[in-house]
Amino acid sequence: MKIYIAVVGLGYAGLPLAIEFGKKFNTFGYDINSKRILELKKGIDRNLQSTKKEINKSTKLQFTMNISDIKKCNFYIISIPTPITKNKKPDFKLLKSVSRAIGKIINNGDFIVYESTVYPGATKEICIPILEKYSNLQCVFSDAKNNSNNSGFFVGYSPERINPGDKKHTLKKIIKITSGSNKYSSNFINKIYSKIIDAGTYNVQSIEVAEAAKVIENIQRDVNIALINELSMIFKKLNIKTTDVLKAASTKWNFLNFAPGLVGGHCIGIDPYYLIKKAYDIGHTPKIISAGRKINDEMTKFIFKNFISLMIAKKIEIKESKVLIMGLTFKENCPDYRNSKVIDLINFMIKKEINVHVYDPFIPSIKGIFKNKVKVISNLKEKNYDGVIISVAHDQFRKIGIEKIKKITKNISVIYDLKSIFVSKQVDDSL
Amino acid sequence: MKIYIAVVGLGYAGLPLAIEFGKKFNTFGYDINSKRILELKKGIDRNLQSTKKEINKSTKLQFTMNISDIKKCNFYIISIPTPITKNKKPDFKLLKSVSRAIGKIINNGDFIVYESTVYPGATKEICIPILEKYSNLQCVFSDAKNNSNNSGFFVGYSPERINPGDKKHTLKKIIKITSGSNKYSSNFINKIYSKIIDAGTYNVQSIEVAEAAKVIENIQRDVNIALINELSMIFKKLNIKTTDVLKAASTKWNFLNFAPGLVGGHCIGIDPYYLIKKAYDIGHTPKIISAGRKINDEMTKFIFKNFISLMIAKKIEIKESKVLIMGLTFKENCPDYRNSKVIDLINFMIKKEINVHVYDPFIPSIKGIFKNKVKVISNLKEKNYDGVIISVAHDQFRKIGIEKIKKITKNISVIYDLKSIFVSKQVDDSL
Repeated sequence: MKIYIAVVGLGYAGLPLAIEFGKKFNTFGYDINSKRILELKKGIDRNLQSTKKEINKSTKLQFTMNISDIKKCNFYIISIPTPITKNKKPDFKLLKSVSRAIGKIINNGDFIVYESTVYPGATKEICIPILEKYSNLQCVFSDAKNNSNNSGFFVGYSPERINPGDKKHTLKKIIKITSGSNKYSSNFINKIYSKIIDAGTYNVQSIEVAEAAKVIENIQRDVNIALINELSMIFKKLNIKTTDVLKAASTKWNFLNFAPGLVGGHCIGIDPYYLIKKAYDIGHTPKIISAGRKINDEMTKFIFKNFISLMIAKKIEIKESKVLIMGLTFKENCPDYRNSKVIDLINFMIKKEINVHVYDPFIPSIKGIFKNKVKVISNLKEKNYDGVIISVAHDQFRKIGIEKIKKITKNISVIYDLKSIFVSKQVDDSL
Repeated sequence: MKIYIAVVGLGYAGLPLAIEFGKKFNTFGYDINSKRILELKKGIDRNLQSTKKEINKSTKLQFTMNISDIKKCNFYIISIPTPITKNKKPDFKLLKSVSRAIGKIINNGDFIVYESTVYPGATKEICIPILEKYSNLQCVFSDAKNNSNNSGFFVGYSPERINPGDKKHTLKKIIKITSGSNKYSSNFINKIYSKIIDAGTYNVQSIEVAEAAKVIENIQRDVNIALINELSMIFKKLNIKTTDVLKAASTKWNFLNFAPGLVGGHCIGIDPYYLIKKAYDIGHTPKIISAGRKINDEMTKFIFKNFISLMIAKKIEIKESKVLIMGLTFKENCPDYRNSKVIDLINFMIKKEINVHVYDPFIPSIKGIFKNKVKVISNLKEKNYDGVIISVAHDQFRKIGIEKIKKITKNISVIYDLKSIFVSKQVDDSL
């Protein structure tokens, strides 16, 4: 069988996949975002993950925003965001609409592999029925059948594990979990992925195990950061420096190095809500997962309050003070500010009529977010700020150095180094 | 100054300390438990931590239960348990009574170092005032003073980090945190400990930082196990094997390997309550630390219910069934069953009129705990049990092997392998 791959959704997870598959198989990279497709055709990845050279190396890859181009494919990989609603419930809108679109074009014997993070059971409960409905075909679950029967399609789940901004753990270097709706498809899907993943694949017992494995990875991170955030709240009240305590605890061989901070983005701050929803559905009230989310969501206000206290302690007038926010992205060394908690922090400041400037080398403009109330700057002017919050640990801020940052502040001012990137004596406070 | 060391409390933390100090300094190992002292004088450590040979190598060490013997010491190390009350509040009774006893015998220039786990602030708020009261001396906090002034005593805190049953991470191989009431004492205490710790010492800014560092180590472990326990409760309802999911997730480079299980003993299940208490005192309601404790405490009932369901599914009459509990200790390869949650599990069974036998190679007898309702056995009889719960992952159970365990069960019976020490196909269920 000749394989034609379609990667549906070309974001942080989809693009690297499309590029790697396009080195080995005839591959279509499909996205509904026409701007993205036009840029990618020119070799430009605005996420700064892949270079033009890397994109061009993928000689069998074609980018398209035309769904009819991928009709002839027989191996579909769905890699689209699974966000949450305003009420923090799983938002399956995109996943459902893509499943409808793919359902309409698949044929007997085709493979459809989902990569989006969901709760265990979602692929079978939500995606497969839609595929069946719109294709008028059946998903094959029986181990007795393989695609030579030509009677139905196969579904798999292989969770994306991309770590945005991480140049070390890239797609090929991260072991990939694979699964399928029956044994035949599980093995087949595993074989296809194994062609591009140098680190190897890990084929699991069921789609549900694969779904569960992915969602708990991010939950574990969320809960661990939440614990450190809770400790940092307690230690603040006790007048103990959290960084001192963490450094000391880290001298034990099995202490886990997590740091306090804002948890935003489209993974760690989102995925736990998927399992929380499923847990409630089956009658289990999650305690620790929910507590983790609650604490991490509270951090923005905690940071804001701390900053205001630091200003007041120095008798700086809050209203119309000038504050520089260094870093807007949800994570260091990454241009992504979707669901960045720094945005919430800035919104708290706007309410207090603070004049906020944002400096983030990864973000040249922020049209629309703050209704023109926030200025994005690219030059740091001396003696300009009543306060500076270093909110993201971009490597570039370390390069700028604390001396330069001190120079841009007024004589009486506050430097709040959330991520402890500078020595604590050099700044007013950190988390 | 000639150093005479007294180690007060010769449990899991105190004995190894006394032995190591006794190789370099004149050392007294003091305990109020006369049985323990008589055994130690014969070179017998019932905790199986130290061999007779190791004890004998400590040529400058003397064991005593007579407090007047340690009057002449000038460096006191307090290493006694800090348990919780029935209401799960810190129980400082022992720490207070020892502080009183030591307060009565200390002199100007003496050092008193606490090793017991407490919340940050406890040494200064609870121990030092008692030492001052009973000694009629002052604790020196000022950096200007050192012991040549001869006007007051010095206090330090150096948390014990002993890992019971762990033959790799022993006292000398674990970095030791040190601190003191002023700079002079902090350095001095650090110097004394550095003589016996091969891994090195880590001198911290204050007693509070040292206290905080210790308590969060165990909290982090408690919370991480609680998360996995919560996941295991959810996955059980979803009919997904937790071990399958954990194995899959562990193929990611940064997934942390924790396993579900009972959390008992005198550290992980206890220490979080100390920080919880302090947090409430200062007006902070801990969310994640408390959620962790709650889940881990609920595990016993969860396990009991699962076991009963497994029995019912096989139509085994619960009442007067015969069940073997393999492992009573709070941890594998360790003879300590203080606060072991297996005891609670057995108590649930007794209530259901199940005939419980206990097999634990580390525990020859359990006088008094179960009012003669539970039999401790040392021989495994064939075709004897309706159910077996492998509750502790003692290496010896692995050596016995699942085939032998199957032989001791009746034709229709349940094997519940809590710690997944055997292949899942070989047992009825695991966590």
